[in-house]
Amino acid sequence: MTIRRPTIGVFDSGFGGLTVLKALLEVIPDADYVYFGDTARLPYGSKSVETVAKYAVEAAHYLESNGAQMLVIACNTATALALDRITAAAHVPVVGVVEPGAEAAAATTKNRKIVVIGTEATVSSHAYRRALEARGLEAREKACPLLVPLVEEGWVEHPVTEQIARIYLGEAFADSFHEADTMVLACTHYPLLKPLLQLVTPDHVCIVDSADSTACAVATHLQQLLPRTETSPERRASPRLKFFATDSTEKFRRLGARFLGRTIDDVQHVDLKE
Amino acid sequence: MTIRRPTIGVFDSGFGGLTVLKALLEVIPDADYVYFGDTARLPYGSKSVETVAKYAVEAAHYLESNGAQMLVIACNTATALALDRITAAAHVPVVGVVEPGAEAAAATTKNRKIVVIGTEATVSSHAYRRALEARGLEAREKACPLLVPLVEEGWVEHPVTEQIARIYLGEAFADSFHEADTMVLACTHYPLLKPLLQLVTPDHVCIVDSADSTACAVATHLQQLLPRTETSPERRASPRLKFFATDSTEKFRRLGARFLGRTIDDVQHVDLKE
Repeated sequence: MTIRRPTIGVFDSGFGGLTVLKALLEVIPDADYVYFGDTARLPYGSKSVETVAKYAVEAAHYLESNGAQMLVIACNTATALALDRITAAAHVPVVGVVEPGAEAAAATTKNRKIVVIGTEATVSSHAYRRALEARGLEAREKACPLLVPLVEEGWVEHPVTEQIARIYLGEAFADSFHEADTMVLACTHYPLLKPLLQLVTPDHVCIVDSADSTACAVATHLQQLLPRTETSPERRASPRLKFFATDSTEKFRRLGARFLGRTIDDVQHVDLKE
Repeated sequence: MTIRRPTIGVFDSGFGGLTVLKALLEVIPDADYVYFGDTARLPYGSKSVETVAKYAVEAAHYLESNGAQMLVIACNTATALALDRITAAAHVPVVGVVEPGAEAAAATTKNRKIVVIGTEATVSSHAYRRALEARGLEAREKACPLLVPLVEEGWVEHPVTEQIARIYLGEAFADSFHEADTMVLACTHYPLLKPLLQLVTPDHVCIVDSADSTACAVATHLQQLLPRTETSPERRASPRLKFFATDSTEKFRRLGARFLGRTIDDVQHVDLKE
């Protein structure tokens, strides 16, 4: 008996989740992936919990109907605002990015003081603060709404971006948090700014990218779901990647490659209303 | 016989169209207004023509079903990408912002060289260039994707915004356009940056805000549609304003007041899918 090669569904409001898919491909290369980017309705980061939950549940169902046996909510805003709703609506296991991110921060920090940067919606939800406080850590969350548009403008090494990052991080590390030793990137766009953020944060700060920790959490879940058979030839083939986008597929191909770090071929347009 | 007090429908992807509504209230105070902000799906500026057209037609129908006797597409991206589709789908007259903006630029320029700044989608559509070239003017369009998030962050007088504006306008007014004497604000968010943009543009440049010219165009159309009776007491009452938003009404009230310059009371949440 050969074990069926797993199909993992990855969901994001747009392109950012591709940084999580990139990490997944490194950690779990012996799986197939279906990715859903809700590019017609992005960004989620400035929207309300009701709207984000509705959109995310629609996307989750779409991925399930396309064979996903597990769902990765590779969007901090959707995880922070709607993980419970998505988990309740889905028929397969669901993994978000908040818990793995908090877990990685807990494993990294020495002085138990964490700064979390993310979108307005993620920060307002306080999902990270709750997850960190549950681990006995002290957290300060800081919304950085300009960083996503700066990444999308391609200004990932621009002096203006550095200045804006200095303003945001200056506020985040002010007062009682000046000695915080760990910073969580609670937005999947931010890994593209990691070199710049490393330059701007105090030297003693370690940056945690939840993409990597999420990929490890998914690998653990998967092992429980579909135990690996090292000898199965089916599991050793290259991953098949299929992408769905609600806005232009040409733009998804073009911008997405920057986040995934490889070319994107098989993109299909989806209209969720039909 | 008294002439019925007109109801004007105003549509935008979000809050920016409120700058057009503000201008309308000054020019046509003797009308009622229904405003639709598609805040759950904003911004339109980075989306494709198909997606923007679909959303805009849905919004137009919603405003018609709420009594609009005329539609003002107070969104440069929707006008640039989908005015034809909206006009074909609507049952009432439709006025966009591009033609009035181009008309105002033509009336302002002396050396017939115009710089147009707007979102990525508005610029890619070349709707302004076509409208200006049809009037014998030379146009350079420049996308400024960071300006909308900067306005929404409230950094309308921030040194970083000034720096970013200097970068964008430096490119816009480079080479053969250094002597352009008119700049069109082809995005309804930009009027909030007008003082800063005035500081950054060369002294000889006159800034044209299409909100004002659109309000005048609407007044002209309205006069043809429903001739004014100066003596009608119905026409002299204060305007009734009703707002619809597809995302959080609380956020619409809060952010919207900044664009409209007055408090916003009657906001109703709309879910276009239902």
